[in-house]
Amino acid sequence: MLQIIKERRSIRKYLSREVEEDKIISVLESARWAPSGNNTQPWRFILVTSDEMRTKIAHVSHQQRWMMSAPVHIVCIADPSPRYNSGKGPAVQENSPGNELKQAIRDTAIATEHLVLEAENLGLGTCWVAWFVQEEIRPVLNIPEDKYVVAVITLGYPEATPSPTPRQKLEEIVYKENWNESLR
Amino acid sequence: MLQIIKERRSIRKYLSREVEEDKIISVLESARWAPSGNNTQPWRFILVTSDEMRTKIAHVSHQQRWMMSAPVHIVCIADPSPRYNSGKGPAVQENSPGNELKQAIRDTAIATEHLVLEAENLGLGTCWVAWFVQEEIRPVLNIPEDKYVVAVITLGYPEATPSPTPRQKLEEIVYKENWNESLR
Repeated sequence: MLQIIKERRSIRKYLSREVEEDKIISVLESARWAPSGNNTQPWRFILVTSDEMRTKIAHVSHQQRWMMSAPVHIVCIADPSPRYNSGKGPAVQENSPGNELKQAIRDTAIATEHLVLEAENLGLGTCWVAWFVQEEIRPVLNIPEDKYVVAVITLGYPEATPSPTPRQKLEEIVYKENWNESLR
Repeated sequence: MLQIIKERRSIRKYLSREVEEDKIISVLESARWAPSGNNTQPWRFILVTSDEMRTKIAHVSHQQRWMMSAPVHIVCIADPSPRYNSGKGPAVQENSPGNELKQAIRDTAIATEHLVLEAENLGLGTCWVAWFVQEEIRPVLNIPEDKYVVAVITLGYPEATPSPTPRQKLEEIVYKENWNESLR
């Protein structure tokens, strides 16, 4: 597990090779089994493979043209509505205050990372993309305004594997017993 | 990977057996290697093992007494401050509107789930706990008010492994090309 986690990179260059359907299913299946608060499972995914849609998604993601080289985009969506008695929440955007939205984003991030790690496990590459705004990406995919797009995960066979980005040391991110005591 | 993901359960009953230090390090190390937006790595962890502190944490988590049976608590904290030029963000709470907080929660959830999966991989049990409020849990751990506690992960050897909670079917959570088209 730790090896897969350490070998994962953000891949921004893909081979044109298609991704096998059974691998796509495994990747989505891994997300389905994520834990969530009150088992609300507040995640939705849109599997995008058409050139037209991937081009549109790259366009609203600040024209990141490299995204088009990935044969698959998985759009990962948080749906806070199960937390509302009416089954429908308010319209949401980047500066919405609701805790329901924070909870749904948290849980969708968990499920999405399952998918990223399972992809790595299958020899596939991914990249988390979140450089877009709700108002622009939702209409492209007909997503209702009470849902929140957490990420687009690009998916495909990596053309090359970059070096790891630097990380803070363990003693810089871990405290002991309380915030005032360092690990070592 | 998919097997580990499917076998993971939320464990709410632990053996008194201590967790080996090298396993704790592996678990924290897995979080350290998580991806994050702009490589901000906006996560912090407090490793808690003392009876006194675990009792206090369980207390502010709506008196979930089962938490005390876990020999280790890992408090997982989102720190939005790297996103601010000043290096310090505003005080945050459950209904804060900022996008910086949402991004830090997302990234901390990713890192936290790494930790959960690595624990499972090592034969350990975990449970995501997020039933508390910032105002109550932060003072217990001396956490500054510009940080946000995303979760307490309980960690230890499971006393028993419960059945899986039900999940929605793949075709209920996955769409094709856009929100209006189902997978099959």
